[in-house]
Parts: sequence; structure tokens; C-alpha cells
Amino acid sequence: MSKLPKIKQSKIVAQTRLFAVEELSMEFSNGEKRIYERLKAGSNGAVLVIPVVDEEHFLLIKEYAAGVEAYELAFPKGLVEPAEKSIDAANRELQEETGFAANKLTQLKKISLAPGYLSHKMDVVVAEDLYPSKLEGDEPEPIEVIQWKFSDIEQLLLRDDFTEARSIAALYLLQSFLQQKD
Amino acid sequence: MSKLPKIKQSKIVAQTRLFAVEELSMEFSNGEKRIYERLKAGSNGAVLVIPVVDEEHFLLIKEYAAGVEAYELAFPKGLVEPAEKSIDAANRELQEETGFAANKLTQLKKISLAPGYLSHKMDVVVAEDLYPSKLEGDEPEPIEVIQWKFSDIEQLLLRDDFTEARSIAALYLLQSFLQQKD
Repeated sequence: MSKLPKIKQSKIVAQTRLFAVEELSMEFSNGEKRIYERLKAGSNGAVLVIPVVDEEHFLLIKEYAAGVEAYELAFPKGLVEPAEKSIDAANRELQEETGFAANKLTQLKKISLAPGYLSHKMDVVVAEDLYPSKLEGDEPEPIEVIQWKFSDIEQLLLRDDFTEARSIAALYLLQSFLQQKD
Repeated sequence: MSKLPKIKQSKIVAQTRLFAVEELSMEFSNGEKRIYERLKAGSNGAVLVIPVVDEEHFLLIKEYAAGVEAYELAFPKGLVEPAEKSIDAANRELQEETGFAANKLTQLKKISLAPGYLSHKMDVVVAEDLYPSKLEGDEPEPIEVIQWKFSDIEQLLLRDDFTEARSIAALYLLQSFLQQKD
């Protein structure tokens, strides 16, 4: 309905090993002008994988999160490599981070993180029909893999080490997906 | 259970108007060393507000999201100001972005965004018992306020303009909160 504002000018104002900050000169359809900054994501996208073990259990991983300086529970995730499909990236990350591969992978939704100032998007993928298969990742220490019960999700939501919006959102999308299957 | 890795050194490697990128020299308890980068959030925190109209409806806003260059549906949110409580920030943002204030505000959970490389955390607050009250914000154009039915949440999750992980997570936390009230 609303007419998209125009990006009159853009430039990279900072570039580090991982991050690129872009400054945008915006003009809205009503004539208002604003200078915005946003973070540019890599061009290949990212995936989050929900490993479903059976009707009663799913897997979470616990690893160090430098942004919040704590060990956090979350679903496996990672960047898609050049020329890799996001389904294949999901199966690779699953094997690197949990030691399982999946015979069945289903894309649920492409989610954004903070669309106001991050360009990052991420495919949420459900992995089912798991079998043991380990790929080496680049983790500094072994990742802890935790089996969780669907019946204990309320306790999970209450935990101080399960805070990541993407993983909470994924759990919601999973429940909606599983209900539609029934 | 796991012993926290040590931050041996840290320095700001880029600073723009909005963003600060920090480089960390990490040492894990097994002796492995890594260089990490993370984005530092402002020190006052942020809030996301879920405005509940009645037992059948809640409010969403639609505004331009520069990160993904699209108009996106989401819950109102914003930064907490210095010396402001997050409940008060929630009520202020609610008035700025929807034209309503709330008599009842309940903190649900503190969520993180991408804890691996962002330090950002955000209080999710439910706003109930709404009444008209408008505060001027700094928006470049009027924000569209949309009333949505709880019974139409499945359609919302399917929409391409409702992608934000924080808002999807908030909806899940809201449903869990409302079920516990029943």
C-alpha cells in the first residue's frame, strides 16, 4: 500500500572482518528525508535447523555466545556457502553441530532478525528422519547436544539461557507445522 | 556446566553513528583460541510491546524497514532511554507508534537477537487495558496501525511481510502467557 522510500545515496562507512555498515540517504514518499545506517549481511543467506527426533523429542545445542558472554541453548544454525542450497546448508550444519543428518528437510519460512537495521534473512528448516552422521565444523570446543521433550517447552521458554528470538520463533513455526500435519 | 571462555583482550575496531564493532581475543577452557567480532548494543536496552485490544484482537504496526528495503508488519519497539524503566519505555513507544497507552503492562521475557555476535537484549512486554493517548515520535511518516485477530494468526505467519524473528517469538510468548491466565 505505502510507496517505498527511495535510497538516494548509499556508502559503506565501516568495514571489519565480519561486518559492513552502510549509510543510506533516504527520501520518503511524503518528502521527508532521513539518514539511516544498516548492517549488510553476507550475500548467501543463512539457515536455522530444527532437528526433530520423534513425536516426543527435538534437539537443541548449547554453545558459547560471545555477544552475551554466556552459554546459550538454541537451534543449530550457520551461513549458506556459495553455490550451496539452503536445504543442503541445513543438513551440513546439522551434521557439524549435532552429529546427525536428516533424510527429510522442509523449509518453513524465511525470517528476518531486525529488519529495521539488519539485512540478514534466514531460512528456517525442519529436519526429520535423523540418522548418525558427523561432519567436522570449526567450533573451538565440542558442542553440547541436548534432547528436549515437546511436553517440556514451557520450562524451556522460562529458562534464562534460552533467549534467542530466532530459536523461539522457530519453535513456534515448528508447532504450527506439526499441527498442520496432524 | 561449561566453564566460560576468557576474553583476553578486546578493542573497538569500528565505530559509526549507530554501531560499534568490538574484536575479542577469546581463550576457551580447553586452550583453543579464537578471534571473535561482535556488535555492541547501547547500554540502556530495548523493549518490544504486544498491544492486546481484547480477547479477540491485538495490534501490529506496519513501517518501512531499511535493512530489508520493505514495509514490514511487526510489534512496536524501541530503545529504552537513560534512567527510564523498560515498562515505561514500552508505554511510551506504544503511544508514539500506535496512539494508545496501556493501564496494564506485564514483562514476559528478556530475549536476545543473535547472541553469538550481537549483545542486544530486549524486554518483551504485554500491554493490556488500552486507551487512546498519542505521543509524537520521530517517525518520517505516519505508522500504519493494524488490528489483527488471534484466530487469524496462521495467515499472519504465512505472510511475506511478517518475518521478524522478535515479533514471531513475541507472539509465541503471548500465547503461552494468555493460556496460563485461562
